[in-house]
Amino acid sequence: MRGTVDVQAVLAGDRRALARALTEVENDSPAGREALDALFPHSGKAHLVGVTGSPGAGKSSLVNQMTRLLRNPEAGEAKKVAIVAVDPSSPFTGGAILGDRIRMRDITDDPGVFIRSMASRGHLGGIARTTSALVRVLDAAGFDLILIETVGAGQSEVDIARLAHTTIVVEAPGMGDDIQAIKAGILEIADILVVNKADHPLADNTLRALSASLEFARPGQVAAIDRFHHKELAFSQVQLDQTTNEFENEHWTPPVLKTVSTEGVGIEKVVEAIEKHAAFLRTHNQWNIRDAARLQEELNELLMAAFAAEWRKQVEQSRIEAVLGEMLERKLSPQSAALKLLSA
Amino acid sequence: MRGTVDVQAVLAGDRRALARALTEVENDSPAGREALDALFPHSGKAHLVGVTGSPGAGKSSLVNQMTRLLRNPEAGEAKKVAIVAVDPSSPFTGGAILGDRIRMRDITDDPGVFIRSMASRGHLGGIARTTSALVRVLDAAGFDLILIETVGAGQSEVDIARLAHTTIVVEAPGMGDDIQAIKAGILEIADILVVNKADHPLADNTLRALSASLEFARPGQVAAIDRFHHKELAFSQVQLDQTTNEFENEHWTPPVLKTVSTEGVGIEKVVEAIEKHAAFLRTHNQWNIRDAARLQEELNELLMAAFAAEWRKQVEQSRIEAVLGEMLERKLSPQSAALKLLSA
Repeated sequence: MRGTVDVQAVLAGDRRALARALTEVENDSPAGREALDALFPHSGKAHLVGVTGSPGAGKSSLVNQMTRLLRNPEAGEAKKVAIVAVDPSSPFTGGAILGDRIRMRDITDDPGVFIRSMASRGHLGGIARTTSALVRVLDAAGFDLILIETVGAGQSEVDIARLAHTTIVVEAPGMGDDIQAIKAGILEIADILVVNKADHPLADNTLRALSASLEFARPGQVAAIDRFHHKELAFSQVQLDQTTNEFENEHWTPPVLKTVSTEGVGIEKVVEAIEKHAAFLRTHNQWNIRDAARLQEELNELLMAAFAAEWRKQVEQSRIEAVLGEMLERKLSPQSAALKLLSA
Repeated sequence: MRGTVDVQAVLAGDRRALARALTEVENDSPAGREALDALFPHSGKAHLVGVTGSPGAGKSSLVNQMTRLLRNPEAGEAKKVAIVAVDPSSPFTGGAILGDRIRMRDITDDPGVFIRSMASRGHLGGIARTTSALVRVLDAAGFDLILIETVGAGQSEVDIARLAHTTIVVEAPGMGDDIQAIKAGILEIADILVVNKADHPLADNTLRALSASLEFARPGQVAAIDRFHHKELAFSQVQLDQTTNEFENEHWTPPVLKTVSTEGVGIEKVVEAIEKHAAFLRTHNQWNIRDAARLQEELNELLMAAFAAEWRKQVEQSRIEAVLGEMLERKLSPQSAALKLLSA
């Protein structure tokens, strides 16, 4: 059975089949690609929630507590929750101190919870693509909520935000208020802001600083639309109506929430905000817009890779190397080099 | 003469011809593309220095003071300096308070200085591409140093860092020391760190925080190499030797410098660090590696755009739209959609 995936078993909720499918998909094996293809029509239902922030901000314990609450809600039905940890320092990825692992035991033993960690390896584009594929499998497998935990440094959190419907940025207290602009990049992707470790004496400063920063950044709806529009595609995108007239002037204002995740304080507000944001996205057609943009970008990447592969088959490697050499010696501009290679 | 560029005049240092060339190149007109091509063999000599940081950190006055010093050095020859301001809030871009403009008059009247501001418009990829083209023209026109000023928020400063040989990150005091990880993204691109407004009571805290952050980030040489390796290209890159054995274990450690740019304090140390960094890059072959990586990525973009354009000519728009529609309804996975479009 090596290298095969039982798609029906994955759809029926078989955890071993799911784990196998995820491994094949992560390895980008032929069986993995086939499974991904077969599972695709069953995907598109899960709410994808990115959780990002500095190491030490308490992302993992927040994810842990959110999962507990989603499994045992005060009202309504329990949600099936999957966790994808892309953060190498996360306890979910095995980089944990022992205490964290023990605290997490109740969710790791719950059949309604599935945890998958991913070593943060390879180049960034590759991580984003693999995460996207893993999430699609979990989505098809029937998980209602998929929490994607990433370390908040550099490009990775932006790529993950592009994947998620809702992005939570977690901060810990202790910083001043002069850092707005630096943080603008990360705030732009935030749909919900959480100040964790809110029992810290400086928590209120952080709260104020973040609230002030939100004025500077262009958060919420604007960013949500813009984040998909910085790339040129090979084809014209299908543009969905971005808002109905009725809601034209309504924007999502990211709430700034306080938690003490190690004690479970404030978690219900975070879960509430996640649900409110999902409702907002659906009412304002943003859910569909984000999904459509993501799928079209994915298609674009596949097409571009195919174009490049096809072209490489037609051009001799020695010719490419000769032209590259001329360009690196500045005898040939990139523009002229491209023309020369394309006419070959 | 509308729409034509006198390349010989640009090479001879004619400022009007240069301004015209920059405008045509910025507009990506046929004359601009032709000029860029003709100027390319004359480029590759200038030292490209990115200056990035939060609005209010004092980037513009630092650039101003650095330019003064480079024009009137205590020892050695005066350098010809070009300034490209990509920051819409920069006084160079016209977003200035009056005082700044008056303080800048001595450099704006200097024939050895050329200032070009760019409205930060269009999508991010476009800004990076246009900046790269403008810088190439200034490089060919014989400027020794090109200072590229960008606002430090989000993706833009990373793209500019990829363009520059040396990246200076400017900070102002007032932040705490818990922000290491948040700043890791920006620190990764820093070759030189400047704490401006060093007469502020919190300046030493900032200095310590930044120095500590450097331990966390992977700055200097590693980042310098890595920043070019996250993209797949259509062709195999020409790999230059990254280090000679002699220098294998030598890394560039970004210095953390204090300045009070409004008073001209500490500027000579910054200029010294820029020169040291240039020498480091040359000794360790990094100068060539950065140039080669940049040129190859540029060629790659041109090729990819050409592949996409060629493909669009061959496939009917109605067919593309039909496949996109099926994909957005989740009847067809991106993988299958790509196969369907490619077989058309």
